[in-house]
Amino acid sequence: MRTRPLKVALLGCGVVGSEVARIMTTHADDLTARIGAPVELAGVAVRRPSKVRDGIDPALVTTDATALLKRGDIDVAIEVIGGIEPARTLITTAFEHGISVVSANKALLAQDGAALHAAAEAAGLDLYYEAAVAGAIPLVRPMRESLAGDKINRVMGIVNGTTNFILDKMDSTGAGYQEALDEATALGYAEADPTADVEGYDAAAKAAILAGIAFHTRVRLDDVYREGMTEVSAADFASAKRMGCTIKLLAILERAADGESVTARVHPAMIPLTHPLASVREAYNAVFVEAEAAGRLMFYGPGAGGAPTASAVLGDLVAVCRNKLAEAKGPGESAYTQLPVSPMGDVVTRYHISLDVADKPGVLAQVATTFAEHGVSIDTVRQQGKDGEASLVVVTHRAPDAALSGTVEALRKLDTVRGVASIMRVEGE
Amino acid sequence: MRTRPLKVALLGCGVVGSEVARIMTTHADDLTARIGAPVELAGVAVRRPSKVRDGIDPALVTTDATALLKRGDIDVAIEVIGGIEPARTLITTAFEHGISVVSANKALLAQDGAALHAAAEAAGLDLYYEAAVAGAIPLVRPMRESLAGDKINRVMGIVNGTTNFILDKMDSTGAGYQEALDEATALGYAEADPTADVEGYDAAAKAAILAGIAFHTRVRLDDVYREGMTEVSAADFASAKRMGCTIKLLAILERAADGESVTARVHPAMIPLTHPLASVREAYNAVFVEAEAAGRLMFYGPGAGGAPTASAVLGDLVAVCRNKLAEAKGPGESAYTQLPVSPMGDVVTRYHISLDVADKPGVLAQVATTFAEHGVSIDTVRQQGKDGEASLVVVTHRAPDAALSGTVEALRKLDTVRGVASIMRVEGE
Ligand SMILES: NC(=O)c1ccc[n+]([C@@H]2O[C@H](COP(=O)([O-])OP(=O)(O)OC[C@H]3O[C@@H](n4cnc5c(N)ncnc54)[C@H](OP(=O)(O)O)[C@@H]3O)[C@@H](O)[C@H]2O)c1
Ligand SMILES: NC(=O)c1ccc[n+]([C@@H]2O[C@H](COP(=O)([O-])OP(=O)(O)OC[C@H]3O[C@@H](n4cnc5c(N)ncnc54)[C@H](OP(=O)(O)O)[C@@H]3O)[C@@H](O)[C@H]2O)c1
Repeated sequence: MRTRPLKVALLGCGVVGSEVARIMTTHADDLTARIGAPVELAGVAVRRPSKVRDGIDPALVTTDATALLKRGDIDVAIEVIGGIEPARTLITTAFEHGISVVSANKALLAQDGAALHAAAEAAGLDLYYEAAVAGAIPLVRPMRESLAGDKINRVMGIVNGTTNFILDKMDSTGAGYQEALDEATALGYAEADPTADVEGYDAAAKAAILAGIAFHTRVRLDDVYREGMTEVSAADFASAKRMGCTIKLLAILERAADGESVTARVHPAMIPLTHPLASVREAYNAVFVEAEAAGRLMFYGPGAGGAPTASAVLGDLVAVCRNKLAEAKGPGESAYTQLPVSPMGDVVTRYHISLDVADKPGVLAQVATTFAEHGVSIDTVRQQGKDGEASLVVVTHRAPDAALSGTVEALRKLDTVRGVASIMRVEGE
Repeated sequence: MRTRPLKVALLGCGVVGSEVARIMTTHADDLTARIGAPVELAGVAVRRPSKVRDGIDPALVTTDATALLKRGDIDVAIEVIGGIEPARTLITTAFEHGISVVSANKALLAQDGAALHAAAEAAGLDLYYEAAVAGAIPLVRPMRESLAGDKINRVMGIVNGTTNFILDKMDSTGAGYQEALDEATALGYAEADPTADVEGYDAAAKAAILAGIAFHTRVRLDDVYREGMTEVSAADFASAKRMGCTIKLLAILERAADGESVTARVHPAMIPLTHPLASVREAYNAVFVEAEAAGRLMFYGPGAGGAPTASAVLGDLVAVCRNKLAEAKGPGESAYTQLPVSPMGDVVTRYHISLDVADKPGVLAQVATTFAEHGVSIDTVRQQGKDGEASLVVVTHRAPDAALSGTVEALRKLDTVRGVASIMRVEGE
């Protein structure tokens, strides 16, 4: 056992960072035994130096993160500031100074993962980020290492706890979107500005990271099709229930049937109540991974929160410290397949479409003809009408998204179609 | 990229080994890219050399596994023979010759894990065995590495697919044990001699391995309390349903409340239908892990089968090969806590007890007094009677197993108690 400690710079000490610091202190002996050397919190960079921070020695606190990294004795930096800058520059500075990095920053990794990985690789250092996707759930390491001898064909998951909390509330209480969002905000599950969550930006960042790892290729944030869940209504949940389904905001990453391309998307979708993801309640996350040899795996747990996220950060810290002691580095980016990312139009799935139509003879025939002309085959149709107004609910067989878009455009032009009330994809069958 | 291949000796080429060989051949390019060097199947040791083996070059086949390991050019050995000998001696021989080992052998690891780990450590080599527990499900690596910065307090899982298939059949069809076992045998889910599965030996081996990893201590096979599921009856399932429960064969590993000891046990138990483990159907496995910071995690997937098990073996192969190339080794055994394993009597849980009693006044009072005298507090009692015969179903609050055993012994001595029809633990609440 080495007695000289490994020195850690903690960049950021908010929700996640404060938990990292707390556990590093309370569980110091366990960390020492597991790493094979003591780890020491050598400095804590924050924005507001005078804020009282429980359990943090004020002498360690600094606002100059760059100077902390440059002082020459730091082995590992933990970046839990978030956002693009100064996080990106600080991580690069760390690599320039021989410091390996653990980060929880999905936004940055989704946007600049390739460049940061290249910088780590060039410096022979580690860049670990288990906490960036699905919080406490071991997912990055299992996909990158445990499944390294397998071929992942599909990943489908609930990777945003805020939206799952809102959708679960809507499902279980019949509440509308705004009411459920208000409750999530009151309980601390949604931020004051919930845009990143409810518009799917957070999930899209995680989708980009996971897609790259799953398919050993590079998937940029712009490659991920993204649709938020602010339009999901109580009526959609009623329709879903009628089909034996619920609605979840899903991140779905697929290898095309010919294996020559991949797709990555985030959108709300109906899934059957019998699907394991349907029973993921509250703010929990869960990810299904389908691999050629392994079959269907699921990983479930808390997707966020200070302590759960700190658990993932500290698992990475132990790994990076072990690598430092062994003068080795862990697996870096694996993007050798260079598979292109196909546009959303190429995605093949099923659809649930609600139309407001005129309640007169021939409407169904006209609608059915429009689907047929666009090559979209209908599975079921349900018609409900009263007082000259009617609604038509169509569930399709599997069809390319582009064909469905074409169908909807044509439907809107029919004079018997008053409006397209909702379009939702149906997954998990 | 190194061009000289890493050489692999495959020891055993049965259900698992043949899939390992197949994937190594069909996915050679992917493995090369992920490892950073080609891997070559350098020899295949079997018992019956003349057996026709699809896709295996007959020139590679040998019955002399020892000579294969000693020939001087092998980097990694994959042990998928199973059983104690010759597997144990072969693994030791491998370490003596500088060869790292990947194994799927739960029986051997549960019995001799400590000695094998010590041999690997002394030689500076890897011993990996993700496939030994819960087949394809990444569990050993997530527990050992992803949760290395956390404190695991509880592991509860379905780790045997055969028994889960049988119990699921009994639950869904009302079949008895023998009928469900016959179906499992006919469908290939149970072996001709199902003892290792139905008596819980297989699950106990996995429990010992998982407990050691979870609590960073050494848990011997003998330390694991084991009860099979051959006594579980259709009547037990009926009782379970009445309580909103089903019955599963569970492996449960717990840290004592004071943190100073651990317990490890395998037995059938009632769990609420709302518990995620209740919905694990057919031969699937799933493991719940509760950690201090991470919270409740679940890992789900196929627990056995040639291809799923090969997926886990190959994930380990990639890791071990990467370590070889980096002239490093992965994390070895971690048993520094040296926590003692407490006997079953110290386990605290709830119980469901069915008694056949005389249908006369005062019986309930007598039974209730017996529970009270042993310090076991009753949650609910249900009494059913006809024709002088009656049954009494008692569900207790949490109590030590020793107190419950004492209660049952005393109940058997009451002249109003005709017999104890069943005792089952209630978990997952
Ligand atoms: N919270 C979660 O549940 C969760 C889950 C998964 C991943 N993450 C990721 O973890 C990261 C951190 O999240 P968080 O929730 O802990 O954020 P947070 O509570 O807002 O904390 C951010 C910390 O960074 C510090 N900081 C801000 N600007 C700085 C600068 N220029 N220099 C030095 N320090 C600066 C802040 O200092 P002050 O304390 O002085 O304000 C604060 O300590 C983000 O990337 C987030 O996406 C969070
Ligand atoms: N099957 C599963 O689903 C599964 C799941 C998880 C873990 N495992 C574990 O994986 C291991 C292998 O299981 P398996 O189902 O593949 O077993 P298997 O089908 O019985 O195969 C055993 C292989 O070992 C060979 N063998 C037996 N004795 C040998 C000896 N003395 N020297 C050299 N080779 C010998 C056999 O040769 P022949 O081919 O000539 O008979 C056969 O190829 C076991 O430890 C098992 O517990 C299996």
